[in-house]
Amino acid sequence: MINVLFAAKPGSWDAYRETLAAAFAAKGLTVDLRQDFPPEEVDYIVYAPNSSVQDFRPYIRAKAVLNLWAGVENVVHNDTLAIPLCRMVEDGLTEGMVEWVTGHVLRHHLGIDACLAQQDGQWRPVYPPLARERRVTMLGLGELGSACARMLAALKFDLSGWSRTERSIDGVKTFSGDAGLRAALTGAEIVVLLLPLTPATENLMTAERLSWLARGAVLINPGRGALIDDAALLAALETGRLSHATLDVFRTEPLPPDHPFWGHPKVTVTPHVASETRPVTASMTIAENVRRGEAGEPFLHVVNRTQAY
Amino acid sequence: MINVLFAAKPGSWDAYRETLAAAFAAKGLTVDLRQDFPPEEVDYIVYAPNSSVQDFRPYIRAKAVLNLWAGVENVVHNDTLAIPLCRMVEDGLTEGMVEWVTGHVLRHHLGIDACLAQQDGQWRPVYPPLARERRVTMLGLGELGSACARMLAALKFDLSGWSRTERSIDGVKTFSGDAGLRAALTGAEIVVLLLPLTPATENLMTAERLSWLARGAVLINPGRGALIDDAALLAALETGRLSHATLDVFRTEPLPPDHPFWGHPKVTVTPHVASETRPVTASMTIAENVRRGEAGEPFLHVVNRTQAY
Repeated sequence: MINVLFAAKPGSWDAYRETLAAAFAAKGLTVDLRQDFPPEEVDYIVYAPNSSVQDFRPYIRAKAVLNLWAGVENVVHNDTLAIPLCRMVEDGLTEGMVEWVTGHVLRHHLGIDACLAQQDGQWRPVYPPLARERRVTMLGLGELGSACARMLAALKFDLSGWSRTERSIDGVKTFSGDAGLRAALTGAEIVVLLLPLTPATENLMTAERLSWLARGAVLINPGRGALIDDAALLAALETGRLSHATLDVFRTEPLPPDHPFWGHPKVTVTPHVASETRPVTASMTIAENVRRGEAGEPFLHVVNRTQAY
Repeated sequence: MINVLFAAKPGSWDAYRETLAAAFAAKGLTVDLRQDFPPEEVDYIVYAPNSSVQDFRPYIRAKAVLNLWAGVENVVHNDTLAIPLCRMVEDGLTEGMVEWVTGHVLRHHLGIDACLAQQDGQWRPVYPPLARERRVTMLGLGELGSACARMLAALKFDLSGWSRTERSIDGVKTFSGDAGLRAALTGAEIVVLLLPLTPATENLMTAERLSWLARGAVLINPGRGALIDDAALLAALETGRLSHATLDVFRTEPLPPDHPFWGHPKVTVTPHVASETRPVTASMTIAENVRRGEAGEPFLHVVNRTQAY
């Protein structure tokens, strides 16, 4: 019997209880899955960073913390955590993100907002350039960023991608490091942020870096709110350096009702819906990691704690 | 010297004059390109159906009519036309259509309109289903329809496709014929029309066929306006059978200012911008067909006059 602690907000339990049980059974694992165990009896911790479990030291025999979320910034620096921490990577999360990013890039590329606002009986045909003439830059080429980049490349966007370490993707001009960041951003018309939040990426989009973009550029952020210097963003929208920002993530969520992003004519707020972990596919990832742990095989998607993602 | 008549509205001449000359030169062809010739001296007619040329009988030595547009319904039934008629197929037209169709399918799939309307400070996360859970049906699997279908399949939509004659596309459940039409439409949540306009497709979307769709379905028409019975469409929007229609083409264009589609809360009018022929790429298609005609090779994209497309 393998004891798996489900340590997330109670609302998640209903969504995961049956799908996790089915996934463990499908792997041939005999699991006792509960929301409560004596800590010293727990073998694996299925974990959401907003869980009440913040001190991992009593979990003396636990083999891994299996994160339910892709983002780990609220757990990776927990000094009480000495066992492997695995990020969530699952098909539904990636597919949902590809759909959201592709949809909003095309929305801005095609000028759909302006079209929706022009239903007044006047026939004003305006043809957008082809995607091959539109400069799009993706910051972050991890699991999610590279999947989005492949789809945007299939649509033939003039696509650049930047990551901390060198990556190569067909149809994408890739850049890395500090010098590469300037090259990737210079002249970009649509920029998508899909970076993890780390000390190195916090406030990455400063006033200076925003000034490198094409005049009237659009910023799309489904990554993490703190990647952007909010004051610099508002100033760039004011001057016209940026024409629009579509933001799915914020420093404080829910975004407070009096925040200047709400109702701003050049900002679209979406309530952190770009993608979510889907219970069916996420449960399969978790069951596979428990199987690996029991078989003594390496875990999938282990977070590199020194790089913090 | 090959005499090529440019028979389109004068406004097109500026867009095409130089790109056509460059394309002929690139093929090694010595061409005299003009807007006016004695008809009996013309070798090829570059043609837009809104041209003043409507009687082809005086063009006694002309080898082909090379249409500037993808649609041929306004020329194909011209009884004075006895030489091959070639449709326009060019990369820009196809790419633009793929971008427009993918953008509007994702717009409706993701619920972007509702999101744009909810900028009031209230955090209301609603997750759309994954594309793999969304039933999309493409009517028409010609050059444009099949290119769009391949992109929607890459996004993993639950995709059906229908065409008059049997077709096969990876990732698409394909149907054909009358019985196939009902199967393709039944339960569809998003329907895209990319059929040519022929006697067999005029008013294809009747009240009965609209009633086969999923309740609250969305209709997207970048094909031809007369594919839809407009009164049936307005009635289906009224009853909620359809939740929205995004229409790029109309029986009368420009759409008259007093038409009920304008300003209708469940209709988005776009002014025939889903795709257009791009001069650079279209000129290459035309030059290739002139080269083929001079070399005695078969023309590309010849219209089957009995099927009328």
